[in-house]
Amino acid sequence: MHPKLLKGNLLLFFLVVMGWTGPVFAQTPVTVQMVSTTEDSLLIRRLADTILTDGRAYENLRLLTKTVGARLSGSAGYYKAEKWGQRVLGEANADKVWMQECMVPHWVRGGKDEASWATTTVGKGGPTSKAGGYPEVLGLDVLALGNSMGTGPKGIHAPAILINTFDELEQHKDELKGKIVFYNYPFNPLFVETFQAYGDAVRYRAVGASRAAKYGAIGVLVRSMSSSVTNFPHTGALLYNDSFPKIPAFAVGLRDADRLAERLKADARGVSVFMRSGAHMLPDTPAHNVIGELKGAEFPDQYITVGGHLDSWDPAEGAQDDGAGCVQSIEVLRALKAIGYRPRHTIRVVLFANEENGGRGGRKYAEAAKDAGEKHLLGLESDNGGFTPRAFTLSLPDDKLAAIQPWVGLLKPYGVYELERGGGGSDVNPMSRQLGATVGELRPDSQRYFEYHHARNDVLENVNKRELELGAVNMAALIYLVDKYGL
Amino acid sequence: MHPKLLKGNLLLFFLVVMGWTGPVFAQTPVTVQMVSTTEDSLLIRRLADTILTDGRAYENLRLLTKTVGARLSGSAGYYKAEKWGQRVLGEANADKVWMQECMVPHWVRGGKDEASWATTTVGKGGPTSKAGGYPEVLGLDVLALGNSMGTGPKGIHAPAILINTFDELEQHKDELKGKIVFYNYPFNPLFVETFQAYGDAVRYRAVGASRAAKYGAIGVLVRSMSSSVTNFPHTGALLYNDSFPKIPAFAVGLRDADRLAERLKADARGVSVFMRSGAHMLPDTPAHNVIGELKGAEFPDQYITVGGHLDSWDPAEGAQDDGAGCVQSIEVLRALKAIGYRPRHTIRVVLFANEENGGRGGRKYAEAAKDAGEKHLLGLESDNGGFTPRAFTLSLPDDKLAAIQPWVGLLKPYGVYELERGGGGSDVNPMSRQLGATVGELRPDSQRYFEYHHARNDVLENVNKRELELGAVNMAALIYLVDKYGL
Repeated sequence: MHPKLLKGNLLLFFLVVMGWTGPVFAQTPVTVQMVSTTEDSLLIRRLADTILTDGRAYENLRLLTKTVGARLSGSAGYYKAEKWGQRVLGEANADKVWMQECMVPHWVRGGKDEASWATTTVGKGGPTSKAGGYPEVLGLDVLALGNSMGTGPKGIHAPAILINTFDELEQHKDELKGKIVFYNYPFNPLFVETFQAYGDAVRYRAVGASRAAKYGAIGVLVRSMSSSVTNFPHTGALLYNDSFPKIPAFAVGLRDADRLAERLKADARGVSVFMRSGAHMLPDTPAHNVIGELKGAEFPDQYITVGGHLDSWDPAEGAQDDGAGCVQSIEVLRALKAIGYRPRHTIRVVLFANEENGGRGGRKYAEAAKDAGEKHLLGLESDNGGFTPRAFTLSLPDDKLAAIQPWVGLLKPYGVYELERGGGGSDVNPMSRQLGATVGELRPDSQRYFEYHHARNDVLENVNKRELELGAVNMAALIYLVDKYGL
Repeated sequence: MHPKLLKGNLLLFFLVVMGWTGPVFAQTPVTVQMVSTTEDSLLIRRLADTILTDGRAYENLRLLTKTVGARLSGSAGYYKAEKWGQRVLGEANADKVWMQECMVPHWVRGGKDEASWATTTVGKGGPTSKAGGYPEVLGLDVLALGNSMGTGPKGIHAPAILINTFDELEQHKDELKGKIVFYNYPFNPLFVETFQAYGDAVRYRAVGASRAAKYGAIGVLVRSMSSSVTNFPHTGALLYNDSFPKIPAFAVGLRDADRLAERLKADARGVSVFMRSGAHMLPDTPAHNVIGELKGAEFPDQYITVGGHLDSWDPAEGAQDDGAGCVQSIEVLRALKAIGYRPRHTIRVVLFANEENGGRGGRKYAEAAKDAGEKHLLGLESDNGGFTPRAFTLSLPDDKLAAIQPWVGLLKPYGVYELERGGGGSDVNPMSRQLGATVGELRPDSQRYFEYHHARNDVLENVNKRELELGAVNMAALIYLVDKYGL
């Protein structure tokens, strides 16, 4: 985490975690000339044809996931991924490829000793009886949360308490001393858009540890942020409040969370939990945004940026999060070049560093652009998985958004049926704040994202080639339309 | 196959295989009263709430796939599935559950000896040299096509010929005698809607064997109907033309098809292929549509039917095809009953028999309804997989379709953004022909359907619980709106 973030800038942290920026809408006058021509339709068809038949998105993702793999900031995998990014941007025929350095946090899981289990008492009248019986151990599939501190090699062992909500935490604040708090807040299935369920639940992962530590808890287990039927634990960043002890915190697999909650409700003699983790922070280390560019023919000093983040969590291949966004962005450049399109504005593909546990790459890119006095039309991001596209959000005022609605007719044959008002993702949102640029993101179908998000099963096999490619088709089409008509 | 079908009714076969019926649009006058009220929105939200939180669709599918499994017409699995259907319709609180008998074809794969490999010659100057070398064997992952005849226990072994299209077949008709034809027609990735690619390619599976037999070929391999990156072979029905010998026909895995095509192109000394299959037809046998009903309060003798097909191909669990459609249809009834909705018309859930290799169940249902003089408002089908919903097709004339467009606003929060003109699936289309009913189908996202269709990987693990449920939500909402406002 950025030192400022570590000092408790909760709001900014939430902006990063939840990919939300509030009102960051561009305020320039409406100048969009909207003529949806047959020419546009044909050009977009050519983009689609090359992406769907000669596309490199899936093969690039295969190389990234299977020859690089996990690539958390500061890990050897990340530096290997930078080399992959430079190479594939070159192969996509970028006019220029370079690296932009930024310092990133360096958190490590710290060895293979990560473990957790719960001990309950059964027998002699069963777990509801007050005395006797013998211990029964319930193994828990866990992942230490990113940025968390470990337990030391011996681990910790303490009585556990079931807490469903922060309200309940406050009600039980006098009972938390020396205990391990188990937050079992569910991922609400009533949100049809799963990112809303994530936004609702993620605070338990993000700040649950410090809120429990405030009342003397010595460790935290958090139900994973997912409504999957599988048991995979889902890691992700937490943020310690420096005013309280930095206690260890684990994400728990979903079925194990169900079982643990049952035991805690049923066992009158209490359940104790063991946690062991070698997680710790190392000093900040340099990393890079990897950038490729197609020079604009008319306005070379005006930029359209499209990107995803190159880092991933350590337990998986980061295929959906966010290998998909990286290869889609590279594919936009490759396809435009492949059909011989000469952009009016300069188009930049950015593979951002450190989205997962610091957001340094996105901030660095916007700061550097501001320092250079660059004018940016659009920062477009793909960081919601490589699923079938449904919409784009754009940070445009209503009149401008209305002016570009005819574009929907051009995108709909490829899956996007909505251009709606909204922010970008956490890597492009700094471009809005720093540069006043319009930002936006691809909104693919969200139902499967939290099956894989930050979990061991975020692997290539869970990416569908055509869904991935159709995302790239729509991104390329939107970039083309913005390049041609402005925003 | 139905005897009539086996006598060469190619057109009807294609209608069944491709789920297309041509102009079957209802011709009754427009009487739809369209008032999209807050009441509708709230009622649909209640349907969604029960399906997304207390839903039985996924658990019912788990039971069907894991305790029944494969259920081809005539197999023991199918009769077990009938019992499953009766039980879960009862648990869903149908007012009445019954079975409707029909005779179905009984094709069997015939033992585990199904196998195929290609032999090519390598060494002594490599495969392009004209002499010498030694044989190298390329194993082929195959599945005999449904309704196909086997080879006898010794198999057949013959020179192979690569044929990419039926045009090429005609060009090479004098070279086919005694050979095994390998149709390598690709699943065209340029169709964004994958069912169009299927409609384009499926003729090679459906009639390729007889067209090759006409010129003396003794066996056929067909590239599987899919654009997957995996190697699974995809079976499916063929239709013999009785004028020619019934030669054996296999679907070949996609990567093996690539390799075989390469060998056939490269090896100047020819490639021979071995095929062995015990497939054969047994006499027709009785099976049943399983039907559950909610009695209408105002118009008990007017019907709205919703269904999927209960049979599946033999190599897998039939999870997407069409366990999904069955459990979604049952969930419609369960949800309406669970929220205490009293339908005006009688709502029927039909689990159709024998969609895969005969279409007998769908025809039987429509014929019986015609014989009984029943009036049917709508036959709605779900047989395109349990993926995130995007649209419904309905066989309505333009004016009626325009009249119900305000419904889109009620469905959109749950994923469906389009009510478009089109036919139903192959099980409800007979209701259009026989009864003049409006027919339609759920059109979910199609990108992954042909990953699993008729292949060994059509298993529960490839169904996403939420996607499945959202399909049911939209189906329940549409059934409610049709029940309330008519069509």
